[in-house]
Amino acid sequence: MPVPRYSLDALTEFTVRVFRHHGVPEADAQQAADVLRAGDRRGIDSHGVARLLAYHRKLDAGVTNPAPQIRVVRELPGTATVDGDNGLGLVVGPAANRIAMDKAQAVGSGWVSVCNTNHFGIAGYYVLEALKQDLIGWAMTNASRLVVPLWGAERRLGTNPIAVGFPALEEPPIVIDMATSTVPYGKIEMARRLGQSIPHGWGIDAEGQSTTDPAAVVEGGGLVPLGGERERSGHKGYALSGMVDVLSGVLSGANWGPFTPPFGLGLEGGETRVGKGIGHCFGALQVAGFRDPLSFKQEVDHWIRTMRGTAPATGTNGPLVPGDPERIAAAERERDGVPLSPAVLADLRTVAHETGVPFD
Amino acid sequence: MPVPRYSLDALTEFTVRVFRHHGVPEADAQQAADVLRAGDRRGIDSHGVARLLAYHRKLDAGVTNPAPQIRVVRELPGTATVDGDNGLGLVVGPAANRIAMDKAQAVGSGWVSVCNTNHFGIAGYYVLEALKQDLIGWAMTNASRLVVPLWGAERRLGTNPIAVGFPALEEPPIVIDMATSTVPYGKIEMARRLGQSIPHGWGIDAEGQSTTDPAAVVEGGGLVPLGGERERSGHKGYALSGMVDVLSGVLSGANWGPFTPPFGLGLEGGETRVGKGIGHCFGALQVAGFRDPLSFKQEVDHWIRTMRGTAPATGTNGPLVPGDPERIAAAERERDGVPLSPAVLADLRTVAHETGVPFD
Repeated sequence: MPVPRYSLDALTEFTVRVFRHHGVPEADAQQAADVLRAGDRRGIDSHGVARLLAYHRKLDAGVTNPAPQIRVVRELPGTATVDGDNGLGLVVGPAANRIAMDKAQAVGSGWVSVCNTNHFGIAGYYVLEALKQDLIGWAMTNASRLVVPLWGAERRLGTNPIAVGFPALEEPPIVIDMATSTVPYGKIEMARRLGQSIPHGWGIDAEGQSTTDPAAVVEGGGLVPLGGERERSGHKGYALSGMVDVLSGVLSGANWGPFTPPFGLGLEGGETRVGKGIGHCFGALQVAGFRDPLSFKQEVDHWIRTMRGTAPATGTNGPLVPGDPERIAAAERERDGVPLSPAVLADLRTVAHETGVPFD
Repeated sequence: MPVPRYSLDALTEFTVRVFRHHGVPEADAQQAADVLRAGDRRGIDSHGVARLLAYHRKLDAGVTNPAPQIRVVRELPGTATVDGDNGLGLVVGPAANRIAMDKAQAVGSGWVSVCNTNHFGIAGYYVLEALKQDLIGWAMTNASRLVVPLWGAERRLGTNPIAVGFPALEEPPIVIDMATSTVPYGKIEMARRLGQSIPHGWGIDAEGQSTTDPAAVVEGGGLVPLGGERERSGHKGYALSGMVDVLSGVLSGANWGPFTPPFGLGLEGGETRVGKGIGHCFGALQVAGFRDPLSFKQEVDHWIRTMRGTAPATGTNGPLVPGDPERIAAAERERDGVPLSPAVLADLRTVAHETGVPFD
């Protein structure tokens, strides 16, 4: 049976109505739905409507604030800390990102760290917003513990993604959007469900040893940082994950490391708190603060074409440029709609049932 | 026979006199030697006096400018592009980094991209300078081609390092300093010399296939980006390397990617030029622009202790914190001096012979 597909517009309309149902102000409901749409559109299925049930449950339980008073608690011309008042990260994130972009437009560079916020969708969304203004953009967030530091046998860090975008002229922009773990947790869960083994370098067991058994990763083990074991420089992925955690969590006064609360109710993590909510960090640079923007974008085109023009490794079509897979997915999903798995469909029907917002 | 050791002061004195011999102004000679000293001190032997012969040869041949007029060619309060006038990167880098730090002190965040410069030593040096001012610091540089993009069979990128530093209070600071390739080229050359095989995930052969033969990497192959093959997310290391290249090379108007010139005469790379010299990028953030600096540093201490307190993986002593290995090496080298291999000693004696500066 083919997986049913739903149009982006239909999913967005449903999402807006669900947020509205919870008392999220109209503009914020539209904003939050726009971020989720970007995840579904770009093929990052784990970060689109697949998370709507979790958002719904937290709003329903009064755990997330539907109408936050987002405020700047400290700032300089090129920096700010934003307190998200425990709102949806899908609303707080875009507001804080706009502050970073405004600062970049004013003084050339703007960096904003955010506390008291929640899961913010795909990191790539924020740099795509920066690209609309021809800004170089960064977005990072910490997340609940899934990843072990190199040589550790306990989960201490999230998959802490980094997104970075560079505008191009005729070519599509460079859009990096990557977790700092080798793979997302979903890949481990999927292998476990299918009874498959996983490659070495994805996860460790409860003793901190590399394992090919996904169940051992889920039950007491954890994901490894990009690189994996020491021999392949897993300390580098750990360092990058730590950088994201400090910029997002420690710098803003949010929770960090093992204290970071989970994105959904009843999930592991953050039983002890050291700050407020989770943390994000946004950065923006004005290209004109460095170089004529037109010549910069022309040269980014040249960079992109140079990488694409690399002689291909045998058995491949040659290098891609960061952002290519998501762009290809976006074209396909705009044309054909978003495929929803039976599990996600069931979740959305639960949301529909519990909110009275019609689905299907 | 034990490897002879030389005191940091003796090596610094020799280095200063060599640069002085080439007409490098006194303050610049001291500055350049200070950067090289940091490499030797912190145990990054490939980036200390081991490179002095290459600097000497380029100055001797008139290829590097001993007395550059370093200037800001474009700026905003939080950004600048610096033209290094083809000076030593060991002099241009520190000057540009100071501009980034001054901007962070003025408006909270400062980012400086640098063109027309040369090899700048260890990236970690620059964030240690930022830490002296309690700033969060970044340093990046591009470098000549050694690394293949994922799915490529040609070298297109350098080992393009990223350094980031966060100040702590009672604990030593977090100092990340990492190449974006899985391993440095020196590890491949070393294995080849010793007739040893290398692990999968370090390099590819001329067809772009993973290889355990170091000779295949050296002869027509290349290093792989952090992560290695696709299954272990080599696209992420490639993306990070690309980020460094665009921020350092493209943004400043330097050369980038395969066009980046090599650090020494007669080495491969950069036969075609698309800009001026190599490129660096420095960033600095003022902690007080986000949060009370004392409470931030206390919380960084807590972060560090939390990571150190992770249950250790079997067979290890548990996680380190980025910067630990270099700090341990520094204590040892300050006490016992810097071990110099026969090859490096021979190089330094060549420098001594050609400049008339006494060594030993």
